[in-house]
Amino acid sequence: MAEPFDAVDVIITKRDGGELADAQIDWVVDAYTRGAVAEEQMSALAMAVLLNGMSRREIARWTAAMIASGERMDFSSLSRRTVDKHSTGGVGDKITLPLAPLVASCGAAVPQLSGRGLGHTGGTLDKLESIPGWRAVLSNEEMLDQLEKVGAVICAAGAGLAPADRKLYALRDVTGTVEAVPLIASSIMSKKIAEGTSALVLDVKVGSGAFMKDLDRARELAETMVALGSDAGVRTVALLTDMSTPLGLTAGNAMEVAEAVEVLAGGGPADVVELTVALAREMLAAAGLPDVDPADRLRDGSAMDTWRAMIAAQGGDPAAPLPVARETHVVPAPATGVLTRLDALAVGVAAWRLGAGRARKEDPVQAGAGVQLHAKPGEQVVEGRPLLTLHTDEPERFDRAVAALEGAIEVAAVDRAADRGASYTPTPIVLDRVTP
Amino acid sequence: MAEPFDAVDVIITKRDGGELADAQIDWVVDAYTRGAVAEEQMSALAMAVLLNGMSRREIARWTAAMIASGERMDFSSLSRRTVDKHSTGGVGDKITLPLAPLVASCGAAVPQLSGRGLGHTGGTLDKLESIPGWRAVLSNEEMLDQLEKVGAVICAAGAGLAPADRKLYALRDVTGTVEAVPLIASSIMSKKIAEGTSALVLDVKVGSGAFMKDLDRARELAETMVALGSDAGVRTVALLTDMSTPLGLTAGNAMEVAEAVEVLAGGGPADVVELTVALAREMLAAAGLPDVDPADRLRDGSAMDTWRAMIAAQGGDPAAPLPVARETHVVPAPATGVLTRLDALAVGVAAWRLGAGRARKEDPVQAGAGVQLHAKPGEQVVEGRPLLTLHTDEPERFDRAVAALEGAIEVAAVDRAADRGASYTPTPIVLDRVTP
Repeated sequence: MAEPFDAVDVIITKRDGGELADAQIDWVVDAYTRGAVAEEQMSALAMAVLLNGMSRREIARWTAAMIASGERMDFSSLSRRTVDKHSTGGVGDKITLPLAPLVASCGAAVPQLSGRGLGHTGGTLDKLESIPGWRAVLSNEEMLDQLEKVGAVICAAGAGLAPADRKLYALRDVTGTVEAVPLIASSIMSKKIAEGTSALVLDVKVGSGAFMKDLDRARELAETMVALGSDAGVRTVALLTDMSTPLGLTAGNAMEVAEAVEVLAGGGPADVVELTVALAREMLAAAGLPDVDPADRLRDGSAMDTWRAMIAAQGGDPAAPLPVARETHVVPAPATGVLTRLDALAVGVAAWRLGAGRARKEDPVQAGAGVQLHAKPGEQVVEGRPLLTLHTDEPERFDRAVAALEGAIEVAAVDRAADRGASYTPTPIVLDRVTP
Repeated sequence: MAEPFDAVDVIITKRDGGELADAQIDWVVDAYTRGAVAEEQMSALAMAVLLNGMSRREIARWTAAMIASGERMDFSSLSRRTVDKHSTGGVGDKITLPLAPLVASCGAAVPQLSGRGLGHTGGTLDKLESIPGWRAVLSNEEMLDQLEKVGAVICAAGAGLAPADRKLYALRDVTGTVEAVPLIASSIMSKKIAEGTSALVLDVKVGSGAFMKDLDRARELAETMVALGSDAGVRTVALLTDMSTPLGLTAGNAMEVAEAVEVLAGGGPADVVELTVALAREMLAAAGLPDVDPADRLRDGSAMDTWRAMIAAQGGDPAAPLPVARETHVVPAPATGVLTRLDALAVGVAAWRLGAGRARKEDPVQAGAGVQLHAKPGEQVVEGRPLLTLHTDEPERFDRAVAALEGAIEVAAVDRAADRGASYTPTPIVLDRVTP
């Protein structure tokens, strides 16, 4: 059958700064999914979109076309109200792990379809797979059953959900077109809308370890996604949160699970607790449950109970010891004073090079690999004392991990910090909030 | 073997407006040619180059890398001085056909490696293949022998010449990245430099029927190519010439051969004669033969003798009747007055749709198909009398060809033309000249 449009015409329209018509968008997404638009054509279009942008109308239509490429899920049979959270990805971002059971323990249903890591940011599924026995793949029936009984599920998104996005994401990853705001927004929101949640909280990361390096671009992405969600009938709110330094004290799969369990036990690093509770409050408000205080559920152990039930329901043993890497290497503090900078991207790349992440999607990851922090920015450090501990099963990886950390650590002598303008100004975790 | 660069890093450098390092350019062109950089990666890079440009240094290095991807030819054994001409392509542009034998008849050697048409501009090889028996493919030895004995050869470029360009050109064609000045310039010049000519005249077309729609962009392309040629030791000059209306009175393969023969016989449309002689003078000057007047060789029949020898040397019968299309359809003048506009692109698309050109490179072309003009802009036309005759073997093609001509024809009433500001101002064929 003859195609109604020519891919080259669509590419040239966007290349020359024009707006794509609705019918062109519907066609190009569908034709790409079924292979009638070639990978090299879509990559040229993606680059043109990255450099020339898309209007709100174009992004909304593109998102709708991606949703239409696959199936939609339906949670309307659940007795609980559903609410989902999405993070744009950061270093040490294990928030989903304590957050999903916490919000479930407050009465909502949290269907958390997650992915694996690629590049310097970890993947939630990779982290959970460090728990012996835990499995990421559930049928739709298993998922619904677990949501009703436990309230929280973290599992792999099925292949039927927005297949256009799956294909396009893999293409963008190898063609330098990941960073296009219209494509990031439509990728995230097409999956979340197709997933059928009724409320959604977005955690849009800002800083060196995030896709969005500055606040303005992050705000643009957040506003775009909040508008897309609202237009699709999903109550959507976004928090802009700091990703200039890693979240918590760990970046690595099993290590992050351990830290998440600390938070569920009522402890854990202050920044992880603060962000988990802030996101939980937003999720509960969006789900119509504003009167429950999630901090209570951390204290009374009910969030931990839900975590254990959630892990066990997917075959995992929540009491089993977590894997530990065979080798460690200590990076000492370079000076005595206040740690003023510990760069998120550098730590993320170091963890990746230690084996916590993958370069290609078919690569395995090491459960025990990663970076452990002994201090956070704003804290005192002593020259020669451990600042970071690197973990891996393969000691030949240490050199390249250490190289990734070059220039990432800054320490200011305490008494002279203010004079040199190098004193540490604490950055709040939550930088801003974006509502419809 | 591990690659020294990552394609994504190269793409992102150009995407973000940076300059590629020499080593990056050498690597990406070589890796693309051998398949280590994927088609979808090169298309994203091509789109980034189109939108963000390249510096003179980058273009020169890119061109050198394309030359290095294949073999180089060597004409130094010839007793004649070599000079080549390249046109950026237009509608009715049959100039190569009379020009090559004309310049050869003046004493130079003209090695004209040509291509087939794609889209609305015809290909020189397609035109010559309408001559019974003529063959486009010669060995290097046959080519050298013909250059020495006849002085002119028009043949297909061998697969060994700039294979990177061959692959990249096919990719650009389907990804909306044909119009990038750095890629056009390096594509043309890599082949011409690899071909080993010592002098080169460029015919850079400007107007609706050309790649370059306006004079500034055409001048940019011409200056870029002249600099590339000069830097590579090739005496290079460019003429910017008008392509707002078709050249001569024909657009179609056999029809254009017939028109070229008319010019060689001392007749032919004034614009074709003027441009042929102007380019011949530039070529002779560049070849160090400034004292020969090509107009004499048209008058005395020696250019025609060389044409016949050139065609016969490649198996063609210069005396054989040319193919004629089976069906014709007349487009009458819409009014009486002065023809003020006859759009080149529209005529080119009409000829293409009649079967003179191809949409995909594996498609055949019709030898007899095309558009015949009965008047040129500036001439009087009478309402209802034939303005164009369309030729094709397949009459079902007429409707779409006529549709292509909509809005392409303008006629101003003679007595009121000046009042209405619609009077015809003749455009010179040669608009400007670009030298090193």
